[in-house]
Amino acid sequence: MNDFAASLLKTFGADVVTLGDAISPKYRQDWAALAPVLPLALARPRDTAEVSALLAACHAAGVPVVPQGGLTGVSGAAHPDAGGIALSLERLNRIEAVDADGGTLTAGAGVILETAQNAAQDAGLMLGIDIGARGSCQLGGVLATNAGGNTVIRYGMARDHVLGLEVVLADGTVINGMNALLKNNAGLDLKQLFIGSEGLLGVITRCVLRLHPQPAARATAFLGCADTTATIALLRAARGALGPMLSSFEVMWPSFFHYMSRASGLGSPLAGEHGAYVIIEATGFDDMATRATLEDFFDKAFAADLVEDGVLAGSTREERAFWAVRESPADYEALLGPVIPFDVGIPIAHMAEAVARIESEIPQIFPTARVLSYGHIGDSNLHVVVNLPEAGRNQPHGAVKATVYRIVGALGGTVSAEHGIGLLKRDYLGHSRTATEITLMRQIKKMLDPKGILNPGKSFDQEVPS
Amino acid sequence: MNDFAASLLKTFGADVVTLGDAISPKYRQDWAALAPVLPLALARPRDTAEVSALLAACHAAGVPVVPQGGLTGVSGAAHPDAGGIALSLERLNRIEAVDADGGTLTAGAGVILETAQNAAQDAGLMLGIDIGARGSCQLGGVLATNAGGNTVIRYGMARDHVLGLEVVLADGTVINGMNALLKNNAGLDLKQLFIGSEGLLGVITRCVLRLHPQPAARATAFLGCADTTATIALLRAARGALGPMLSSFEVMWPSFFHYMSRASGLGSPLAGEHGAYVIIEATGFDDMATRATLEDFFDKAFAADLVEDGVLAGSTREERAFWAVRESPADYEALLGPVIPFDVGIPIAHMAEAVARIESEIPQIFPTARVLSYGHIGDSNLHVVVNLPEAGRNQPHGAVKATVYRIVGALGGTVSAEHGIGLLKRDYLGHSRTATEITLMRQIKKMLDPKGILNPGKSFDQEVPS
Repeated sequence: MNDFAASLLKTFGADVVTLGDAISPKYRQDWAALAPVLPLALARPRDTAEVSALLAACHAAGVPVVPQGGLTGVSGAAHPDAGGIALSLERLNRIEAVDADGGTLTAGAGVILETAQNAAQDAGLMLGIDIGARGSCQLGGVLATNAGGNTVIRYGMARDHVLGLEVVLADGTVINGMNALLKNNAGLDLKQLFIGSEGLLGVITRCVLRLHPQPAARATAFLGCADTTATIALLRAARGALGPMLSSFEVMWPSFFHYMSRASGLGSPLAGEHGAYVIIEATGFDDMATRATLEDFFDKAFAADLVEDGVLAGSTREERAFWAVRESPADYEALLGPVIPFDVGIPIAHMAEAVARIESEIPQIFPTARVLSYGHIGDSNLHVVVNLPEAGRNQPHGAVKATVYRIVGALGGTVSAEHGIGLLKRDYLGHSRTATEITLMRQIKKMLDPKGILNPGKSFDQEVPS
Repeated sequence: MNDFAASLLKTFGADVVTLGDAISPKYRQDWAALAPVLPLALARPRDTAEVSALLAACHAAGVPVVPQGGLTGVSGAAHPDAGGIALSLERLNRIEAVDADGGTLTAGAGVILETAQNAAQDAGLMLGIDIGARGSCQLGGVLATNAGGNTVIRYGMARDHVLGLEVVLADGTVINGMNALLKNNAGLDLKQLFIGSEGLLGVITRCVLRLHPQPAARATAFLGCADTTATIALLRAARGALGPMLSSFEVMWPSFFHYMSRASGLGSPLAGEHGAYVIIEATGFDDMATRATLEDFFDKAFAADLVEDGVLAGSTREERAFWAVRESPADYEALLGPVIPFDVGIPIAHMAEAVARIESEIPQIFPTARVLSYGHIGDSNLHVVVNLPEAGRNQPHGAVKATVYRIVGALGGTVSAEHGIGLLKRDYLGHSRTATEITLMRQIKKMLDPKGILNPGKSFDQEVPS
């Protein structure tokens, strides 16, 4: 047994520290699905003081620490290190308070997102963060990765929901920034440093989140447009007509929609084929008015030739049908086999060019490649998945990524809109950030974590690209 | 003539560098109105490269630099230093682009806020930042102080509008973070460090701001409530009923409203007296629906006894009349004489106690004191002004501040909700931030500005309170 691991076990006890084969497989990888790794030890502290003591011990010994939440990240930021400890925050799972007047929720980092959503709902309010992994992901991980999701166009990224944060630094110092005020300009807003830092700067232990009023009504339309340019004109018109009622604007290109609607057997809500498919969701505080506003917008968009065809959902069942193909990526493995997935950001002005170039340049290299495109274009977020039917488990990740990220970089985009960098996108960070920016990121890490124990070798913790 | 100033003049020329008496009085103080100070030199660079060269020169010589925007700050963050140069960004005043599809505005730091608002409007969109000083303040200063204002409840603080930032560090290094994407999770979001840093960490030279759709309709109500508790219940109900249509929720306590409505001769929109006065503004995208929603809410609030009396504005003239007393603080000097103003944040749950304690404890010390309270309580922001009629220019700042900030600290509030710390609140930062937090702020400054040339001695650049 490793001496350091043994000393941790002795100090913190078997309830907190687990070693060797007793470490459940679930802590050995995250949803990035890299080859499982057994960490030196798994630590599951029960409170902030234990997180602090564990970090102080690792800092003193110079042992790496990989913070873990619900392990639902897809970039490998929570993938364990064979030479370090996995630090699970799952036991900091207490909702401490919901303040309905102030509109805030105070909770531990280990609270499951869906549990927090439900607590907000029980108080007649809403937590505006929602992602597919809501039933497994934990608040600490959601904030540490600045998660996005389906509601970003209306409520923003995870960062936009955070009022206060308690963070433990690498050496065990506790930064208590549990601010619950909507406005606080007293010195630097330190919490901003840790949100989205993927566990490289500190470990989030508690948070205060802002809640929103619960919309009482929802209306959904499924539309067919001529092309990407038409969807962008439609987006602009929708923003102007619906304002903050616009809660989703999802585009599926034919590459994605035709393939997935057929492969899944889900079919299309529309009879004909179009150059782009759009789901528009409006939420409001009055049922009749919400639906009427969306209907009115739809009529105007049709009259202005922004839309070729479309339907409005008349029931919750129809709404679900509109979303079914969009949500079919959960079944990629079954429908498509292993894929190379992308989560990139593209300035709206270059979205049409980006999709066209990606969908034409990859087949130039791999003629049999299937390239499927869809995205939250209201957030300038494009998802692309690539699959070579004949490649099975050996998809040509390197060559395909090089092509996509080269196009993204050339068009002023980002290699990660919402999924973060972690391990999987580390080598591509230089496409989206300058050497000066990466140097500054490293300098900040050096200051906060001088021994480099927090999530070493991930995201920006790398040699600066020349 | 100072040698360093002379060398700057020689290097950058008289078009950029001004010395001595030729420095206009306007650069010698900001709206904090501290005693005017003549800086060593005034530098007015014409582009980012000149900002960089000027900072590199000051860094090499260890000469302090005070960045200046529109000089409308009220905490003294832009107040010059007799031993340093004043660095005005006013000539970086170009609006580079408005992207109506992407919903972004790209501009230099010296662009006047109102100019940027107008450019957004010309493109059919809206910049959601609005503060009283809109005609003079500059974007760089607005972002460097994370300004608030009247629209925070709906659109957030200045921080929430920033997509990209170009910043020059103390040594002249240019950080080009002109991201225009709504989502970008590629490594650390470095811009967050500089927003609200009051010029202590770097100099903002350019920015990309997010624009919003322009609401087409507005409705305004002026209401009388029984007490603070009723206004908080009203706020919660308004959030639930109006959702994102709620664009202002301003409370005036009798101390403020009775005194100012009489002193200004503006009177009240309501016949009787109440325990609290509230202005509610709703904005929407449909004129009839916006007014109907506010009317409907008003009826329900009246039926639920949340409101004692109220009127809805039938015209723009009436709207202006509803806001007249709320905006009379611009005339404090004439109506009240010199005042001691406060901009504090208080958790909603303690708002009633905060107002009651401040309004009773100050007169216990100064029996003749007038203590007037009002605020953006939807943002947990309380403004209080104190005036001793007999004290003239010698208002007892120290004793009054000590009392107010003690109460604010005890109730978990902040000494600065939106105006920043600068020079005037420096000694009170410890009421709102822990020693650990202030130490970390200083550590970040030390890293970015090792010689301490940027705005030395302001905000958190101080001995850590014990």
